[in-house]
Amino acid sequence: MHLIKVGGSLTYFAKPLLSELKIFSNSEENKIIIVPGGGAFANVVRDLNEKGGLSNRSSHKLATMSMDLTGIYFSEISNIKTADNLYEAKKILEDDNIVILLPSKIVLSTDELPHSWNITSDSIAAYIARLLNLNSVIIATDVDGIYDNYPEGKLLNTINAKSIKGFTSVDSYLPKLLLKHNIECFVVNGKHPSRIINILKNNNDIYTKITIDKK
Amino acid sequence: MHLIKVGGSLTYFAKPLLSELKIFSNSEENKIIIVPGGGAFANVVRDLNEKGGLSNRSSHKLATMSMDLTGIYFSEISNIKTADNLYEAKKILEDDNIVILLPSKIVLSTDELPHSWNITSDSIAAYIARLLNLNSVIIATDVDGIYDNYPEGKLLNTINAKSIKGFTSVDSYLPKLLLKHNIECFVVNGKHPSRIINILKNNNDIYTKITIDKK
Repeated sequence: MHLIKVGGSLTYFAKPLLSELKIFSNSEENKIIIVPGGGAFANVVRDLNEKGGLSNRSSHKLATMSMDLTGIYFSEISNIKTADNLYEAKKILEDDNIVILLPSKIVLSTDELPHSWNITSDSIAAYIARLLNLNSVIIATDVDGIYDNYPEGKLLNTINAKSIKGFTSVDSYLPKLLLKHNIECFVVNGKHPSRIINILKNNNDIYTKITIDKK
Repeated sequence: MHLIKVGGSLTYFAKPLLSELKIFSNSEENKIIIVPGGGAFANVVRDLNEKGGLSNRSSHKLATMSMDLTGIYFSEISNIKTADNLYEAKKILEDDNIVILLPSKIVLSTDELPHSWNITSDSIAAYIARLLNLNSVIIATDVDGIYDNYPEGKLLNTINAKSIKGFTSVDSYLPKLLLKHNIECFVVNGKHPSRIINILKNNNDIYTKITIDKK
């Protein structure tokens, strides 16, 4: 089973990506679970947090619910079914091989993640990977991977989770979660679906692999 | 019991309004049920509908869920409890006299309203009033009421639901619902909480009353 987070930054590029993932999941018997980002809905939550007196606790709740709304949108344009708990998600995977997870009920029911903007859908995707005992997660975003400097730097093929510092295309809590739970991570540009398919096939392509070698 | 829709356009003006409603509900034993608008979350849904291939059916679902998110925000800044069904709402009203309704579960479970942008939270508020057998509904928005011409016209004290045509500050389906279910409606500027309190006290102030006289 593969877990792929499809970032909200891909909202208007998601249709071809979801379509290719659906085809791949059916042809290769590689089951795929999609975790949506919060997209423009989460930006509204950020505004309410910054300018409307919304607490971090409530922002966390509304931000995870924003992921649900984006997930319903992804489902609509792809005809991939949704599930709001992992029991149902596994049931759908048996028949359909692919499912979109609406994560708010899971995240709020266990409430293991801190309520902070350091935790975004990247960390939530890794958390769900941990609940599913997966050892890798793919983060599809709108940049090619992680750069040694951004925006003018060099794209990194690999980086150790321990070395990730400062501004990157992933949230700052993610490396901790990856290290803690021994989960590898691929950061890839979802505007090029073939790159994700190549990760799924263990082929090289343009992306950054976050390794968790603890030496 | 009074039903007040607090429009999303009041997002950044909602705190004093909710605070005054809370005080009024406790002092006067006038129970208040608040129905939130969709606010900026619903604008994201509109964009997805116009530019992202989201169908009207799914837009309806996401727009009502947007009302839930705005309702959770209103709850956070006011310490008024939320309920996502009318059974729980009535239970909370027994103790607290005021409650914020998260309407998506109700609207989707009965699915009596058309899936169209002619139906917004105004019509949903009137629909909930009907479920509660109320004979009036208050719509708090960011303008003073309904004008004979907008923006340059005269504010109307009253207008018959049958006479509402074209652009107004309420959605175009609302007059039909009001006439069908014999519900009066007050359209009032929520930036001036005292005007709403005056409606609740049957006092005159600045607002438009939509009458349903069928002659």
